[in-house]
Amino acid sequence: MFKRLCLIGIGLIGSSIALRARKEGLVEEIAIQSRRQETVDAAARRGLGDTYTTDPAEAVKGADLVILCVPVGAVGDITEAIAPHLEPGAIVSDVGSVKGAVVAAMQPHLPDHVDFVPAHPIAGTEHSGPDAGFPELFDGRWCVLTPPAGTNPEAVEKLKAFWERLGSHVETMEPSHHDMVLAITSHVPHLIAYNIVGTAADLETVTESEVMKFAAGGFRDFTRIAASDPTMWRDIFLTNREAVLEMLARFNEDLTALQRAIRWGDGDTLFDLFTRTRAIRRGIIEAGQETADPDFGRQKKV
Amino acid sequence: MFKRLCLIGIGLIGSSIALRARKEGLVEEIAIQSRRQETVDAAARRGLGDTYTTDPAEAVKGADLVILCVPVGAVGDITEAIAPHLEPGAIVSDVGSVKGAVVAAMQPHLPDHVDFVPAHPIAGTEHSGPDAGFPELFDGRWCVLTPPAGTNPEAVEKLKAFWERLGSHVETMEPSHHDMVLAITSHVPHLIAYNIVGTAADLETVTESEVMKFAAGGFRDFTRIAASDPTMWRDIFLTNREAVLEMLARFNEDLTALQRAIRWGDGDTLFDLFTRTRAIRRGIIEAGQETADPDFGRQKKV
Ligand SMILES: NC(=O)c1ccc[n+]([C@@H]2O[C@H](COP(=O)([O-])OP(=O)(O)OC[C@H]3O[C@@H](n4cnc5c(N)ncnc54)[C@H](OP(=O)(O)O)[C@@H]3O)[C@@H](O)[C@H]2O)c1
Ligand SMILES: NC(=O)c1ccc[n+]([C@@H]2O[C@H](COP(=O)([O-])OP(=O)(O)OC[C@H]3O[C@@H](n4cnc5c(N)ncnc54)[C@H](OP(=O)(O)O)[C@@H]3O)[C@@H](O)[C@H]2O)c1
Repeated sequence: MFKRLCLIGIGLIGSSIALRARKEGLVEEIAIQSRRQETVDAAARRGLGDTYTTDPAEAVKGADLVILCVPVGAVGDITEAIAPHLEPGAIVSDVGSVKGAVVAAMQPHLPDHVDFVPAHPIAGTEHSGPDAGFPELFDGRWCVLTPPAGTNPEAVEKLKAFWERLGSHVETMEPSHHDMVLAITSHVPHLIAYNIVGTAADLETVTESEVMKFAAGGFRDFTRIAASDPTMWRDIFLTNREAVLEMLARFNEDLTALQRAIRWGDGDTLFDLFTRTRAIRRGIIEAGQETADPDFGRQKKV
Repeated sequence: MFKRLCLIGIGLIGSSIALRARKEGLVEEIAIQSRRQETVDAAARRGLGDTYTTDPAEAVKGADLVILCVPVGAVGDITEAIAPHLEPGAIVSDVGSVKGAVVAAMQPHLPDHVDFVPAHPIAGTEHSGPDAGFPELFDGRWCVLTPPAGTNPEAVEKLKAFWERLGSHVETMEPSHHDMVLAITSHVPHLIAYNIVGTAADLETVTESEVMKFAAGGFRDFTRIAASDPTMWRDIFLTNREAVLEMLARFNEDLTALQRAIRWGDGDTLFDLFTRTRAIRRGIIEAGQETADPDFGRQKKV
């Protein structure tokens, strides 16, 4: 499908792409770049690629598919550095969790002789680095493409086919709409998870050790989400500011209403909301995005 | 250990107790009561007990351990109904997620010739009913006992030993402290999970089908929590009002600070919090209350 795939950044997402692309035979050669030598070394130990370097300009040479797999705050500078070295006809893409800001940061630097097709695979775990990846990460998950107006439709089709072979369903949308959808389905949920874990850590009336011991009542699920990479998430909130603040305002309005219902003992309002929310979960399970197993096998059967 | 265990209410918690107590040989006989005949029938189909009835007064007869496994809003009326029929020397307990209000609702009705030892096993799934229980539910999880001042210490020891045989670690604390700990580790997390799922369902800019398709970015974890039983959770918020509102106020203060950091592009504040929260998760894993598996085996390996 591609002659030479170049991955700029080789963490959870980059290594998962490398493993699956190789397994499916989608590329002849994989060129791997990472900023720090130790990450490059770890990638080499896992045998993720064919060539390894810390130099982005060198990595992209001869590549017909270049995918940036770095935090969204870093894509602008990297694109500027690789632009003069990109092969004519290459597809340039990324995997960033924010799309409006990524398009704005990358597009101005790119030469006319490449095709720019931004992408976001909606799949992940709370782990990072080149050892965290696994080839099944994208199976059954959605990947959103946000090609700017005027992008060569053949390049979009080709990248779509690539992501489908990685295991994903693919959908195309406007960057701004993507950023709204992700603000509510991912960014605000992460923010409130980070926030409640922080609140719990700062209490005087309840000790940290009590919080840890009695975490099975719901809290531990939030800590998993709040264990995701700090750099990645800082960049997401800084680059998707408007959509996050808008969704957060809606969240706060709704929470104020719930708070009032609790204060006034309005059980019906609580019961109605708690009933409505179950339908959404059923929809997610039907959409194949969740398992119905209780506790996801977290509970070991004895 | 006990001659006759009486379970008033036979949902997720009651059925898990029945299955494990039988397996461990902790009781000679199990008397099961539930409000509705269809629940009693379901319990009988699973063979959870030895006798079955919808009448709480009948169920408690001859029992030396009575455990109420019903929503916390229901314990007062039930205690009043069973009080005249309790065996002298019986231990009366419950499994309610709130303890201050439960003690206040039950204690005034109980005769002097029984020992009252309230309990809360901090273990659960989002499923309910007599078919949802499994004997390993309590393994490695904490169970908190909140005996009122003056409770017979032998009864406390006996119930502690019972819960240890069910697989739990046991800790004793004041009801009011329990309610604070659970407000932050369980009740407020559930409230904000219900809230974000409700917010997402009400948006005009993002469709419900988009929310479901793209839920793998974090949202689906919240929907699991927000799929818990509406009656149980309504009762928890109505009966643990003060502690929940206090913790919610702290959560809101902290969230306002985060919101400001996003608005002003203060990446350092975000990064610091996102780094601090990882330590809490490590602590929970070390405390044996969580698995370190990525995605809890939710991702099927192909
Ligand atoms: N993790 C998820 O759940 C997930 C899901 C979907 C999309 N994404 C997106 O995927 C991208 C990568 O995420 P990941 O989880 O794979 O990250 P990761 O495991 O932390 O790996 C990050 C990679 O980016 C490099 N990097 C970090 N900061 C950099 C900088 N300032 N300049 C140049 N290179 C830098 C790292 O290089 P060194 O190690 O050499 O420093 C490493 O190769 C992010 O944009 C994220 O938004 C993540
Ligand atoms: N689920 C958890 O994760 C969890 C964890 C720890 C503690 N708890 C506590 O355990 C208790 C039971 O929870 P569960 O999950 O086992 O509940 P469940 O599966 O929904 O079962 C509830 C049981 O209570 C009965 N019941 C419901 N409303 C009643 C009423 N108004 N009067 C009399 N009986 C009533 C039901 O009877 P019918 O079916 O016959 O109507 C059923 O037998 C609650 O107090 C909860 O706070 C739950």
